[in-house]
Amino acid sequence: MALIVQKFGGTSVRDAERINNVADIVTSTYRQDNDVVVVVSAQGDTTDDLIAKAAEINERASKREMDMLLSAGEQISASLLAMAIERMGYPVVSLLGWQAGFDTTSDYGNARIKKVDASRIRKELDKRRIVVVTGFQGVNRYGDMTTLGRGGSDTSAVAIAATMHADLCQIYTDVDGVYTADPRKIPGAIKLPTISYDEMLELATLGAQVLHNRSVEMAKKYNIELEVLSSLTREKGTIVKEKSNVEKMLISGVAKDDNIARISIIGVPDRPGLAFKIFSKLASKGINVDIILQSIGRNGTKDISFTVEKNKMEDTIELLKSYEETWGASGIVSDDNVSKVSIVGAGMESHPGVAAEMFEALFSRNVNIQMISTSEIKISVLINKADGERAVEAIHDKFFEAV
Amino acid sequence: MALIVQKFGGTSVRDAERINNVADIVTSTYRQDNDVVVVVSAQGDTTDDLIAKAAEINERASKREMDMLLSAGEQISASLLAMAIERMGYPVVSLLGWQAGFDTTSDYGNARIKKVDASRIRKELDKRRIVVVTGFQGVNRYGDMTTLGRGGSDTSAVAIAATMHADLCQIYTDVDGVYTADPRKIPGAIKLPTISYDEMLELATLGAQVLHNRSVEMAKKYNIELEVLSSLTREKGTIVKEKSNVEKMLISGVAKDDNIARISIIGVPDRPGLAFKIFSKLASKGINVDIILQSIGRNGTKDISFTVEKNKMEDTIELLKSYEETWGASGIVSDDNVSKVSIVGAGMESHPGVAAEMFEALFSRNVNIQMISTSEIKISVLINKADGERAVEAIHDKFFEAV
Repeated sequence: MALIVQKFGGTSVRDAERINNVADIVTSTYRQDNDVVVVVSAQGDTTDDLIAKAAEINERASKREMDMLLSAGEQISASLLAMAIERMGYPVVSLLGWQAGFDTTSDYGNARIKKVDASRIRKELDKRRIVVVTGFQGVNRYGDMTTLGRGGSDTSAVAIAATMHADLCQIYTDVDGVYTADPRKIPGAIKLPTISYDEMLELATLGAQVLHNRSVEMAKKYNIELEVLSSLTREKGTIVKEKSNVEKMLISGVAKDDNIARISIIGVPDRPGLAFKIFSKLASKGINVDIILQSIGRNGTKDISFTVEKNKMEDTIELLKSYEETWGASGIVSDDNVSKVSIVGAGMESHPGVAAEMFEALFSRNVNIQMISTSEIKISVLINKADGERAVEAIHDKFFEAV
Repeated sequence: MALIVQKFGGTSVRDAERINNVADIVTSTYRQDNDVVVVVSAQGDTTDDLIAKAAEINERASKREMDMLLSAGEQISASLLAMAIERMGYPVVSLLGWQAGFDTTSDYGNARIKKVDASRIRKELDKRRIVVVTGFQGVNRYGDMTTLGRGGSDTSAVAIAATMHADLCQIYTDVDGVYTADPRKIPGAIKLPTISYDEMLELATLGAQVLHNRSVEMAKKYNIELEVLSSLTREKGTIVKEKSNVEKMLISGVAKDDNIARISIIGVPDRPGLAFKIFSKLASKGINVDIILQSIGRNGTKDISFTVEKNKMEDTIELLKSYEETWGASGIVSDDNVSKVSIVGAGMESHPGVAAEMFEALFSRNVNIQMISTSEIKISVLINKADGERAVEAIHDKFFEAV
């Protein structure tokens, strides 16, 4: 007998039909003599509907009351799923975050799980019940409802799996696995049978929104095997674990991120400490900087370029302009007509020349590279947005045509 | 400084506008230097919508899961009301049943309050916060969500008032008080400034659905002064307390109940024990009998008539027919074309002749009386349904024309 945690997102439980489909998956796992803990998000639009109700009354409602309101969403989906499982004749019980032992920080709207006291879940499993737990929510030290923020339900599932030493944690979503590129854009995209935690983390950062980083980080820390799969196709998904098995693959995926802007500070004096000043100002305003490129000093001045999230571009420019004079810069220029294209792969650590192959692929399609950034298992380039699709295709062909 | 508990029903919080209206009432009570605890029901149709969602998935869902589902309703209304109060600039906190210390029995769907541990509410009041509590719900000894059944939110409010020795418990509803008769039907109906617990209990039983009996019984037991009033008119309502002050009034109200049927068992042998057999059979099937009339034995047989709720008529007849032969009865007849008209008043205890005045009023309008039932503070008659309105009018005129 294995312990399996299954997490279903909002689209997987959006209506009665989908809930019955989920109940099918859950009960068939249970029939195979497994202990099953199910984690659910709120139904489809419930969270948005509740947010709209709140906005009508108070656009600046406290986060504490927002969490009280929003946590009703998973309460509804969890009890409905339990009812569907009941109808199929299986023993089941639904539990709210606080009942399932989710002890969190008090950071309303973005709380962190401090600990999961799984004694109630365990007691229910011992009675051979399927346990349905509300994702995304917990309770703080004052006994108040909290929510976990973006990707929260994935994190809830992994936290239960980690606490209870589950054999597998399945994340059911609306895609059926992790692909080498966006399958809607690249027809030749291949579903990966396995991927490593680190590769998954890089891919998540690069815009492949399959799993949220918090959940992958936690899975890595506690060595929980994750499976990303679809609740509709019923096919094997992608296993995320310590080491991916696909040795012949140099890279595990190509990702593109259009939600990005490039900003350059032109002609700043070439003296020590200025980069520190600039980036600490940005950090203090909560602006995350991605690729950074600094030109070689010439005539005593240099240019500093970096990328930020597109919706932070205006704030960033405003901030920089206020210091332009102090720093002695000669101008601020920006461009949000750019894309970041990245390749990720644990294989590149042991195979030199991956970067060269990527650049060759881009050159072969006449794509100009504006900036380059590399890590041990990732290479990103900034290019013209218009070249984005073509660039992904070229790279994907280069690395995966032979597979 | 007084402690005031205010309860608002589903129509009082059905949309943003109504929630703002409630927030107005609550904050103006708070501004008058009172501690305020607010109890809310789920918004307008929320409960019905949730029941419909459940029915789509499982028409025989367990009561435990139904309670889990339904208790989300008050969670939504309580947090929205708190947000409205926040927007007006007042300190507020919303609490769920379990957070507010509602400890109940495990009778899902119809749980009883065992005890309210009001320490959290008290702590919040000590911080000068307005406390919004979800009505209708609590938690049982297993830490599972329960709901209190019909009239549950009223009972929640009275339970808090009793536990915390509140100075007043206001029940805001869609009528503005307790009237001597249904004001939609009888233009001369008078709003009572006060009414006693016992009179209120009789009126509630007789179909005046202003307050549920459970809440009135609890208020009586702990001597909590209730005020029934409207959240829209902002006028003084009716105070329910130990003794009504209206000494000159013989009776406090006239009520009519059309949801009733008369059933007669004809020609049963006139021997001891048969009435016991008949009514214990009915009781064992959960059929509540109201007025009972037994004819005087003649030729060794008698007739037994009684009234039941209209929707129990078919079941009752079926049950009686199955025993007809055993009992030696000569027939079962029924009539659901009847109304029960009642007068209630603590005054009639000390004023003989009230019954005679009532019968005189009916005679003056040519209304035939089929059955009569009396208690210390109530007289009910069963009449033809067609005579119902006329009878209420006649009785109301008789007792209240001089007031």
